[in-house]
Amino acid sequence: MNSEIIEKLKWRYATKKFDASKKLSEEKLNILKEAFNLTATSYGLQPLKMLVISDPETKEQLMPFSMDQPQVRDASHVLVLCIEDKITPEYITQHFDRVEASRKTSRNILEPFEDFLVTSFSEKLPEEISLWMINQAYLAMGNLLTVCALVDIDACPMEGFDPEKYDELLQLRKIGLRSVLVLPVGYRAHDDEFSEMKKVRRGVEEVVIEID
Amino acid sequence: MNSEIIEKLKWRYATKKFDASKKLSEEKLNILKEAFNLTATSYGLQPLKMLVISDPETKEQLMPFSMDQPQVRDASHVLVLCIEDKITPEYITQHFDRVEASRKTSRNILEPFEDFLVTSFSEKLPEEISLWMINQAYLAMGNLLTVCALVDIDACPMEGFDPEKYDELLQLRKIGLRSVLVLPVGYRAHDDEFSEMKKVRRGVEEVVIEID
Repeated sequence: MNSEIIEKLKWRYATKKFDASKKLSEEKLNILKEAFNLTATSYGLQPLKMLVISDPETKEQLMPFSMDQPQVRDASHVLVLCIEDKITPEYITQHFDRVEASRKTSRNILEPFEDFLVTSFSEKLPEEISLWMINQAYLAMGNLLTVCALVDIDACPMEGFDPEKYDELLQLRKIGLRSVLVLPVGYRAHDDEFSEMKKVRRGVEEVVIEID
Repeated sequence: MNSEIIEKLKWRYATKKFDASKKLSEEKLNILKEAFNLTATSYGLQPLKMLVISDPETKEQLMPFSMDQPQVRDASHVLVLCIEDKITPEYITQHFDRVEASRKTSRNILEPFEDFLVTSFSEKLPEEISLWMINQAYLAMGNLLTVCALVDIDACPMEGFDPEKYDELLQLRKIGLRSVLVLPVGYRAHDDEFSEMKKVRRGVEEVVIEID
């Protein structure tokens, strides 16, 4: 698998034009959903949710809020990475309920760390917590982009969209979420000229520094 | 490869105890370096560098600045993801030099976007640019964690360290860098009890919302 991974990472690119007629199979979608759920997050708290949008009308409506980028309309599915609106003590407690239930760890052992997290989050400003959650969303995006490449799914990571318009249209505030990243996924159009372009990178010798 | 990926993502965990006697091969290290260089970044600007530290003395010295976590000392290599200190117009121009050279695109075609980026970055506050770069570092971390899992490298992503002490010890400011994330990599110790623990996740049905 080793050299195959690098080949796959070279194969991927920010897809500019999707083939609107090609749809992801349930099997491929399930891999993306599982991979998202398995993403590492800070303290294991997973302050993220992912929308998986296939409804054509919704995708069409999102396009004007996405700098008119047609990928949002034409991709098989649009993934929207969202952060929680806030982290309450209950949210943290639920995490430790899951740890207790799945690992059969006694709550006494978990409690000191649980108390530490509840206190620590209660002392943070909401903006600080948001930034922390946004970081986790980027980490999940990095995982998803690599997984997409490995299973031959084309994708286009997007920061350029209007989160407030997304939140309104998708009624995210009602369910305690805020959109932070968008990832149309599907299959490249055969005439996407960007797919043939050479990948431009600074190069390993420039971006890696060894301390032996 | 499809089902194998999910198995690998389940196999990975935040390694608490590394086997200090086991070292990553050159081949595996090269995969991590290549994967880092291939990471997708906003506008393709790659405002990141990665230190690859194997020197035992340096790793030992970093431990007290890493909340005394022994992984920093015991891992085969410690990766430190760094952001650029600032994004100058020259930095942006160099990116377009690379695009021009590798894709043979005429500069006339590139210029409007180049000018847009130079102007747009000159109008941003330094803190805004830092946050944007930190996001890219998290995305790179997400990519690296997945690549590690795929090639059977154990890893422990860390936010809990003292960036200023790292920057000082590693003399990063002199070379225009700031440390933002740490990733010890290597091989788990056979007696790391965390390696046997069940992975705790909210679950696909809770973190994924479908809009069909």
